[in-house]
Amino acid sequence: MESILLAAAALFTERGYDATSMEDLSRALGITKSAIYHHVSSKEELLGLATGRALDGLFTVAAVVEAAPGRAIDRLEHLVRGSVGVLVAQQPFVTLLLAVHGNTQTERDALARRREFDLFTAELVEQAVADGDLRPDIDPLVTAKLLFGLVNSVTEWYRPRPDAGEDYLADAICKLAFDGLRAAA
Amino acid sequence: MESILLAAAALFTERGYDATSMEDLSRALGITKSAIYHHVSSKEELLGLATGRALDGLFTVAAVVEAAPGRAIDRLEHLVRGSVGVLVAQQPFVTLLLAVHGNTQTERDALARRREFDLFTAELVEQAVADGDLRPDIDPLVTAKLLFGLVNSVTEWYRPRPDAGEDYLADAICKLAFDGLRAAA
Repeated sequence: MESILLAAAALFTERGYDATSMEDLSRALGITKSAIYHHVSSKEELLGLATGRALDGLFTVAAVVEAAPGRAIDRLEHLVRGSVGVLVAQQPFVTLLLAVHGNTQTERDALARRREFDLFTAELVEQAVADGDLRPDIDPLVTAKLLFGLVNSVTEWYRPRPDAGEDYLADAICKLAFDGLRAAA
Repeated sequence: MESILLAAAALFTERGYDATSMEDLSRALGITKSAIYHHVSSKEELLGLATGRALDGLFTVAAVVEAAPGRAIDRLEHLVRGSVGVLVAQQPFVTLLLAVHGNTQTERDALARRREFDLFTAELVEQAVADGDLRPDIDPLVTAKLLFGLVNSVTEWYRPRPDAGEDYLADAICKLAFDGLRAAA
Protein backbone atom coordinates (compact mmCIF):
# COMPACT_ATOMS: atom_id res chain seq x y z
CA MET A 1 0.00 0.00 0.00
CA GLU A 2 2.84 2.36 0.87
CA SER A 3 4.42 1.88 -2.55
CA ILE A 4 1.06 2.50 -4.26
CA LEU A 5 0.58 5.75 -2.34
CA LEU A 6 4.11 6.93 -3.10
CA ALA A 7 3.78 6.14 -6.81
CA ALA A 8 0.38 7.83 -6.96
CA ALA A 9 1.72 10.97 -5.26
CA ALA A 10 4.67 11.12 -7.65
CA LEU A 11 2.49 10.64 -10.77
CA PHE A 12 -0.23 13.06 -9.64
CA THR A 13 2.43 15.70 -8.96
CA GLU A 14 4.33 15.14 -12.20
CA ARG A 15 1.47 14.77 -14.68
CA GLY A 16 -1.38 16.32 -12.75
CA TYR A 17 -4.20 14.40 -11.04
CA ASP A 18 -6.62 14.70 -13.98
CA ALA A 19 -4.06 13.51 -16.51
CA THR A 20 -3.10 10.40 -14.51
CA SER A 21 -5.12 7.22 -15.00
CA MET A 22 -5.20 4.06 -12.88
CA GLU A 23 -3.71 2.43 -16.00
CA ASP A 24 -0.69 4.79 -15.75
CA LEU A 25 -0.35 3.93 -12.09
CA SER A 26 -0.48 0.17 -12.67
CA ARG A 27 2.17 0.52 -15.40
CA ALA A 28 4.43 2.63 -13.17
CA LEU A 29 4.14 0.06 -10.38
CA GLY A 30 4.34 -3.00 -12.61
CA ILE A 31 1.21 -4.50 -11.01
CA THR A 32 -2.31 -5.06 -12.34
CA LYS A 33 -5.12 -2.57 -11.88
CA SER A 34 -7.08 -5.15 -9.88
CA ALA A 35 -4.15 -5.43 -7.47
CA ILE A 36 -4.50 -1.68 -6.90
CA TYR A 37 -8.30 -1.94 -6.52
CA HIS A 38 -7.67 -4.55 -3.86
CA HIS A 39 -6.37 -1.66 -1.69
CA VAL A 40 -8.42 1.36 -2.79
CA SER A 41 -11.75 1.83 -4.48
CA SER A 42 -10.87 4.78 -6.73
CA LYS A 43 -8.26 7.23 -7.93
CA GLU A 44 -9.91 9.92 -5.84
CA GLU A 45 -9.51 7.79 -2.70
CA LEU A 46 -5.78 7.56 -3.47
CA LEU A 47 -5.63 11.34 -3.78
CA GLY A 48 -7.39 11.71 -0.43
CA LEU A 49 -5.02 9.26 1.28
CA ALA A 50 -1.93 10.90 -0.24
CA THR A 51 -2.85 14.49 0.61
CA GLY A 52 -4.06 13.22 4.00
CA ARG A 53 -0.54 12.08 4.83
CA ALA A 54 0.72 15.64 4.48
CA LEU A 55 -2.28 17.22 6.19
CA ASP A 56 -2.33 14.80 9.13
CA GLY A 57 1.36 15.55 9.73
CA LEU A 58 0.80 19.29 9.65
CA PHE A 59 -2.28 19.14 11.91
CA THR A 60 -0.44 16.94 14.41
CA VAL A 61 2.21 19.65 14.63
CA ALA A 62 -0.48 22.33 14.96
CA ALA A 63 -2.23 20.38 17.77
CA VAL A 64 1.03 20.06 19.72
CA VAL A 65 1.72 23.77 19.26
CA GLU A 66 -1.85 24.69 20.21
CA ALA A 67 -1.63 22.73 23.47
CA ALA A 68 1.83 24.01 24.37
CA PRO A 69 2.30 26.90 26.79
CA GLY A 70 4.60 29.80 26.01
CA ARG A 71 4.82 32.95 23.96
CA ALA A 72 3.36 33.06 20.46
CA ILE A 73 6.76 33.70 18.86
CA ASP A 74 8.20 30.52 20.37
CA ARG A 75 5.14 28.52 19.41
CA LEU A 76 5.41 29.95 15.88
CA GLU A 77 9.01 28.81 15.71
CA HIS A 78 7.91 25.33 16.81
CA LEU A 79 5.25 25.36 14.13
CA VAL A 80 7.83 26.28 11.46
CA ARG A 81 10.28 23.60 12.71
CA GLY A 82 7.53 21.00 12.84
CA SER A 83 6.31 21.91 9.34
CA VAL A 84 9.83 21.53 7.96
CA GLY A 85 9.98 18.15 9.72
CA VAL A 86 6.73 17.02 8.07
CA LEU A 87 7.96 18.27 4.72
CA VAL A 88 11.21 16.34 5.02
CA ALA A 89 9.49 13.17 6.25
CA GLN A 90 6.54 13.29 3.84
CA GLN A 91 8.06 15.19 0.93
CA PRO A 92 6.15 13.46 -1.95
CA PHE A 93 2.84 14.01 -0.16
CA VAL A 94 3.50 17.63 0.80
CA THR A 95 4.64 18.35 -2.77
CA LEU A 96 1.37 16.87 -4.07
CA LEU A 97 -0.66 18.87 -1.55
CA LEU A 98 0.93 22.09 -2.78
CA ALA A 99 0.10 21.21 -6.39
CA VAL A 100 -3.59 20.40 -5.84
CA HIS A 101 -6.00 22.42 -8.00
CA GLY A 102 -9.53 22.00 -6.70
CA ASN A 103 -11.37 20.25 -9.54
CA THR A 104 -12.75 17.44 -7.36
CA GLN A 105 -14.36 17.37 -3.91
CA THR A 106 -11.30 15.62 -2.47
CA GLU A 107 -9.06 18.39 -3.80
CA ARG A 108 -11.37 21.08 -2.42
CA ASP A 109 -11.39 19.35 0.99
CA ALA A 110 -7.59 19.24 0.97
CA LEU A 111 -7.40 22.93 0.03
CA ALA A 112 -9.87 23.80 2.81
CA ARG A 113 -7.72 21.98 5.40
CA ARG A 114 -4.61 23.68 4.03
CA ARG A 115 -6.30 27.07 4.43
CA GLU A 116 -7.27 26.15 8.00
CA PHE A 117 -3.62 25.42 8.77
CA ASP A 118 -2.52 28.70 7.15
CA LEU A 119 -5.11 30.53 9.26
CA PHE A 120 -3.74 28.96 12.44
CA THR A 121 -0.28 30.21 11.41
CA ALA A 122 -1.58 33.69 10.63
CA GLU A 123 -3.21 33.88 14.08
CA LEU A 124 0.07 32.96 15.80
CA VAL A 125 1.86 35.64 13.77
CA GLU A 126 -0.76 38.23 14.77
CA GLN A 127 -0.43 37.25 18.42
CA ALA A 128 3.37 37.47 18.28
CA VAL A 129 3.14 40.94 16.71
CA ALA A 130 0.64 41.98 19.41
CA ASP A 131 3.07 40.67 22.06
CA GLY A 132 5.75 42.98 20.63
CA ASP A 133 7.93 39.97 19.70
CA LEU A 134 7.65 40.18 15.91
CA ARG A 135 8.39 43.31 13.91
CA PRO A 136 5.23 45.37 13.46
CA ASP A 137 6.25 46.92 10.13
CA ILE A 138 5.17 44.00 7.97
CA ASP A 139 1.47 43.18 7.59
CA PRO A 140 0.95 39.98 9.66
CA LEU A 141 -0.86 38.31 6.78
CA VAL A 142 2.09 39.02 4.47
CA THR A 143 4.44 37.67 7.15
CA ALA A 144 2.42 34.46 7.40
CA LYS A 145 2.37 34.03 3.60
CA LEU A 146 6.11 34.65 3.32
CA LEU A 147 6.88 32.22 6.17
CA PHE A 148 4.90 29.46 4.52
CA GLY A 149 6.23 30.32 1.09
CA LEU A 150 9.72 29.94 2.53
CA VAL A 151 8.97 26.56 4.14
CA ASN A 152 6.99 25.18 1.20
CA SER A 153 9.58 26.22 -1.40
CA VAL A 154 11.85 23.60 0.10
CA THR A 155 9.77 20.85 -1.60
CA GLU A 156 11.29 22.00 -4.87
CA TRP A 157 14.92 21.30 -4.11
CA TYR A 158 15.32 19.42 -0.81
CA ARG A 159 17.15 16.11 -0.99
CA PRO A 160 18.26 14.25 2.15
CA ARG A 161 21.92 15.00 2.92
CA PRO A 162 23.65 12.20 4.77
CA ASP A 163 26.43 14.62 5.77
CA ALA A 164 24.06 17.11 7.44
CA GLY A 165 22.10 16.62 10.65
CA GLU A 166 18.36 16.22 10.02
CA ASP A 167 17.70 19.55 11.68
CA TYR A 168 20.03 21.59 9.47
CA LEU A 169 17.19 22.72 7.24
CA ALA A 170 14.82 23.71 10.08
CA ASP A 171 17.74 25.52 11.75
CA ALA A 172 18.60 27.40 8.55
CA ILE A 173 14.98 28.43 7.94
CA CYS A 174 14.42 29.62 11.52
CA LYS A 175 17.69 31.59 11.54
CA LEU A 176 16.80 33.27 8.26
CA ALA A 177 13.16 33.93 9.15
CA PHE A 178 13.50 35.08 12.75
CA ASP A 179 16.97 36.62 12.94
CA GLY A 180 17.79 37.37 9.32
CA LEU A 181 20.79 36.63 7.14
CA ARG A 182 22.80 39.72 8.07
CA ALA A 183 25.81 38.91 10.20
CA ALA A 184 25.66 40.31 13.73
CA ALA A 185 27.50 43.64 13.78
CA MET B 1 0.18 39.71 -29.53
CA GLU B 2 0.31 40.68 -25.84
CA SER B 3 -3.08 39.12 -25.19
CA ILE B 4 -2.03 35.92 -26.99
CA LEU B 5 1.11 35.66 -24.86
CA LEU B 6 -0.81 36.29 -21.63
CA ALA B 7 -3.48 33.73 -22.49
CA ALA B 8 -0.82 31.19 -23.49
CA ALA B 9 1.08 31.71 -20.22
CA ALA B 10 -2.10 31.30 -18.17
CA LEU B 11 -3.17 28.12 -20.01
CA PHE B 12 0.31 26.55 -20.00
CA THR B 13 0.54 27.18 -16.24
CA GLU B 14 -2.95 25.95 -15.45
CA ARG B 15 -3.15 22.85 -17.65
CA GLY B 16 0.49 22.20 -18.35
CA TYR B 17 2.29 22.95 -21.62
CA ASP B 18 1.86 19.44 -23.05
CA ALA B 19 -1.86 19.32 -22.27
CA THR B 20 -2.60 22.68 -23.94
CA SER B 21 -3.35 22.74 -27.69
CA MET B 22 -3.44 25.68 -30.08
CA GLU B 23 -7.14 24.82 -30.35
CA ASP B 24 -7.54 25.43 -26.57
CA LEU B 25 -5.71 28.73 -26.96
CA SER B 26 -7.87 29.89 -29.87
CA ARG B 27 -11.00 29.00 -27.89
CA ALA B 28 -9.79 30.84 -24.78
CA LEU B 29 -9.01 33.93 -26.86
CA GLY B 30 -12.10 33.74 -29.05
CA ILE B 31 -10.00 34.06 -32.23
CA THR B 32 -9.15 31.60 -34.98
CA LYS B 33 -6.04 29.46 -34.97
CA SER B 34 -4.88 31.14 -38.17
CA ALA B 35 -5.09 34.51 -36.40
CA ILE B 36 -2.66 33.09 -33.83
CA TYR B 37 -0.38 31.64 -36.54
CA HIS B 38 -0.25 35.10 -38.05
CA HIS B 39 1.87 36.06 -34.98
CA VAL B 40 3.77 32.88 -34.10
CA SER B 41 4.76 29.76 -35.98
CA SER B 42 4.22 27.21 -33.20
CA LYS B 43 3.12 26.49 -29.65
CA GLU B 44 6.77 26.04 -28.71
CA GLU B 45 7.58 29.53 -30.01
CA LEU B 46 4.85 30.90 -27.70
CA LEU B 47 6.40 29.05 -24.78
CA GLY B 48 9.82 30.52 -25.63
CA LEU B 49 8.41 34.06 -25.88
CA ALA B 50 6.45 33.72 -22.62
CA THR B 51 9.30 32.29 -20.54
CA GLY B 52 11.61 34.80 -22.25
CA ARG B 53 9.60 37.66 -20.76
CA ALA B 54 10.40 36.44 -17.27
CA LEU B 55 14.01 35.53 -18.02
CA ASP B 56 14.79 38.78 -19.84
CA GLY B 57 13.49 40.71 -16.84
CA LEU B 58 15.57 38.70 -14.40
CA PHE B 59 18.73 38.96 -16.53
CA THR B 60 18.28 42.71 -16.93
CA VAL B 61 18.24 42.97 -13.14
CA ALA B 62 21.31 40.70 -12.91
CA ALA B 63 23.19 42.81 -15.50
CA VAL B 64 22.48 46.01 -13.57
CA VAL B 65 23.61 44.37 -10.33
CA GLU B 66 26.71 42.92 -12.00
CA ALA B 67 27.77 46.35 -13.29
CA ALA B 68 27.04 48.15 -10.01
CA PRO B 69 29.79 48.91 -7.50
CA GLY B 70 29.37 48.17 -3.80
CA ARG B 71 29.47 45.31 -1.34
CA ALA B 72 28.05 41.92 -2.26
CA ILE B 73 25.38 42.10 0.46
CA ASP B 74 24.02 45.37 -0.96
CA ARG B 75 24.11 44.02 -4.50
CA LEU B 76 22.33 40.89 -3.29
CA GLU B 77 19.61 43.02 -1.78
CA HIS B 78 19.26 44.87 -5.09
CA LEU B 79 19.00 41.54 -6.87
CA VAL B 80 16.22 40.40 -4.51
CA ARG B 81 14.37 43.71 -4.87
CA GLY B 82 14.72 43.64 -8.63
CA SER B 83 13.53 40.03 -8.81
CA VAL B 84 10.44 40.87 -6.79
CA GLY B 85 9.87 43.77 -9.18
CA VAL B 86 10.06 41.45 -12.20
CA LEU B 87 7.76 38.99 -10.49
CA VAL B 88 5.17 41.67 -9.79
CA ALA B 89 5.40 43.18 -13.28
CA GLN B 90 5.53 39.87 -15.18
CA GLN B 91 3.68 37.57 -12.79
CA PRO B 92 2.02 35.26 -15.37
CA PHE B 93 5.33 34.73 -17.15
CA VAL B 94 7.37 34.15 -13.99
CA THR B 95 4.72 31.72 -12.72
CA LEU B 96 4.97 29.82 -16.01
CA LEU B 97 8.78 29.81 -15.84
CA LEU B 98 8.65 28.23 -12.39
CA ALA B 99 6.29 25.50 -13.63
CA VAL B 100 8.34 24.48 -16.68
CA HIS B 101 9.25 20.77 -16.76
CA GLY B 102 11.92 20.20 -19.39
CA ASN B 103 10.21 17.95 -21.96
CA THR B 104 11.05 20.16 -24.96
CA GLN B 105 14.23 21.97 -26.04
CA THR B 106 12.57 25.33 -25.31
CA GLU B 107 11.78 24.22 -21.76
CA ARG B 108 15.33 22.91 -21.28
CA ASP B 109 16.75 26.22 -22.54
CA ALA B 110 14.54 28.13 -20.10
CA LEU B 111 15.61 25.87 -17.23
CA ALA B 112 19.28 26.36 -18.17
CA ARG B 113 18.90 30.14 -18.10
CA ARG B 114 17.07 29.91 -14.77
CA ARG B 115 19.96 27.86 -13.34
CA GLU B 116 22.41 30.48 -14.65
CA PHE B 117 20.49 33.17 -12.75
CA ASP B 118 20.41 31.04 -9.58
CA LEU B 119 24.18 30.54 -9.91
CA PHE B 120 24.72 34.29 -10.14
CA THR B 121 22.70 34.64 -6.91
CA ALA B 122 24.64 31.87 -5.18
CA GLU B 123 27.94 33.57 -6.08
CA LEU B 124 26.77 36.87 -4.58
CA VAL B 125 25.72 35.04 -1.40
CA GLU B 126 29.14 33.35 -1.18
CA GLN B 127 30.91 36.66 -1.66
CA ALA B 128 28.76 38.34 1.02
CA VAL B 129 29.56 35.51 3.46
CA ALA B 130 33.27 35.84 2.61
CA ASP B 131 33.00 39.61 3.25
CA GLY B 132 31.67 38.82 6.75
CA ASP B 133 28.35 40.53 5.93
CA LEU B 134 26.10 37.45 5.87
CA ARG B 135 25.90 34.91 8.69
CA PRO B 136 28.39 32.11 8.12
CA ASP B 137 26.37 29.43 9.91
CA ILE B 138 24.09 28.60 6.97
CA ASP B 139 25.55 26.86 3.92
CA PRO B 140 25.65 29.58 1.20
CA LEU B 141 23.95 27.26 -1.29
CA VAL B 142 21.09 26.68 1.16
CA THR B 143 20.88 30.44 1.75
CA ALA B 144 20.62 31.05 -2.00
CA LYS B 145 17.91 28.37 -2.40
CA LEU B 146 15.90 29.73 0.54
CA LEU B 147 16.18 33.31 -0.74
CA PHE B 148 14.85 32.34 -4.12
CA GLY B 149 12.24 30.05 -2.64
CA LEU B 150 11.03 33.01 -0.61
CA VAL B 151 10.88 35.34 -3.61
CA ASN B 152 9.36 32.78 -5.99
CA SER B 153 6.68 31.65 -3.53
CA VAL B 154 5.11 35.06 -3.99
CA THR B 155 3.82 34.00 -7.43
CA GLU B 156 1.32 31.79 -5.60
CA TRP B 157 -0.56 34.45 -3.72
CA TYR B 158 0.48 37.96 -4.81
CA ARG B 159 -2.30 40.20 -6.10
CA PRO B 160 -1.75 43.93 -6.71
CA ARG B 161 -2.94 45.97 -3.74
CA PRO B 162 -4.07 49.44 -4.67
CA ASP B 163 -3.78 50.48 -1.01
CA ALA B 164 -0.13 49.46 -0.68
CA GLY B 165 2.88 51.10 -2.31
CA GLU B 166 4.36 48.98 -5.06
CA ASP B 167 7.50 48.41 -2.99
CA TYR B 168 5.69 46.98 0.06
CA LEU B 169 6.38 43.42 -1.01
CA ALA B 170 10.08 43.94 -1.80
CA ASP B 171 10.43 45.81 1.51
CA ALA B 172 8.75 42.99 3.46
CA ILE B 173 10.90 40.31 1.81
CA CYS B 174 14.16 42.20 2.38
CA LYS B 175 13.30 42.92 6.02
CA LEU B 176 12.44 39.27 6.65
CA ALA B 177 15.43 37.87 4.75
CA PHE B 178 18.19 40.23 5.88
CA ASP B 179 17.11 41.38 9.34
CA GLY B 180 14.59 38.74 10.40
CA LEU B 181 11.10 38.90 11.79
CA ARG B 182 12.09 39.21 15.45
CA ALA B 183 11.38 42.66 16.86
CA ALA B 184 14.49 44.63 17.83
CA ALA B 185 15.17 44.09 21.54
